Amino acid sequence: MSDCIFCKIIRKEIPARIVYEDEDILAFDDIRPQAPVHTLIIPKTHLSSLKEAELDQAGLLGKILIRAREIAGLKGIDSSGYRVVVNTGPDSGQEVYHIHFHLLGGRRLGWPPG
Amino acid sequence: MSDCIFCKIIRKEIPARIVYEDEDILAFDDIRPQAPVHTLIIPKTHLSSLKEAELDQAGLLGKILIRAREIAGLKGIDSSGYRVVVNTGPDSGQEVYHIHFHLLGGRRLGWPPG
Repeated sequence: MSDCIFCKIIRKEIPARIVYEDEDILAFDDIRPQAPVHTLIIPKTHLSSLKEAELDQAGLLGKILIRAREIAGLKGIDSSGYRVVVNTGPDSGQEVYHIHFHLLGGRRLGWPPG
Repeated sequence: MSDCIFCKIIRKEIPARIVYEDEDILAFDDIRPQAPVHTLIIPKTHLSSLKEAELDQAGLLGKILIRAREIAGLKGIDSSGYRVVVNTGPDSGQEVYHIHFHLLGGRRLGWPPG
């Protein structure tokens, strides 16, 4: 998607603090962090949201969760704990329509989650 | 796991408001809902948390996300939007050590997510 901000980050047309990259997945720190660790993890394939995900993309989505766990290790919060959040649609506050998984940690996270 | 509360719900030893079930996955409403829709989605296989998840379980974890989207449809919040939350470890407030995905919606969800 030529005008998607996250696709531009994937293509390195927009700078980002990249923390992990492989052939399928990119992770970079959120520019408006809500916790000491706040990283976004996205698939390189453009997918607007969970609403558009197909069952054959389950493996990719699950791999993003596994990578979230690994990135938590890189960030030093694997023992203290972390929250993964996926927003879909208006009520969730989803702002960028390229699916992204928020990884948050480094502080005690409250409940409810928003 | 004989003493895991979620495994007991899977075995129907403890009642729950079940909203979806297939051979791999069970979904039931949270007993302490934080939003008009608050459903927990769990794998039937006992897995303590994302910390213990292996890469070969990526397909199962991703399928839970796809089912979350479908349950959002059953609950009538597929257009208004929803949030999926996975807590791991102490700072996240994870209380039950059988991995569970929170599906929340039916109201505007705030930011930060806890």
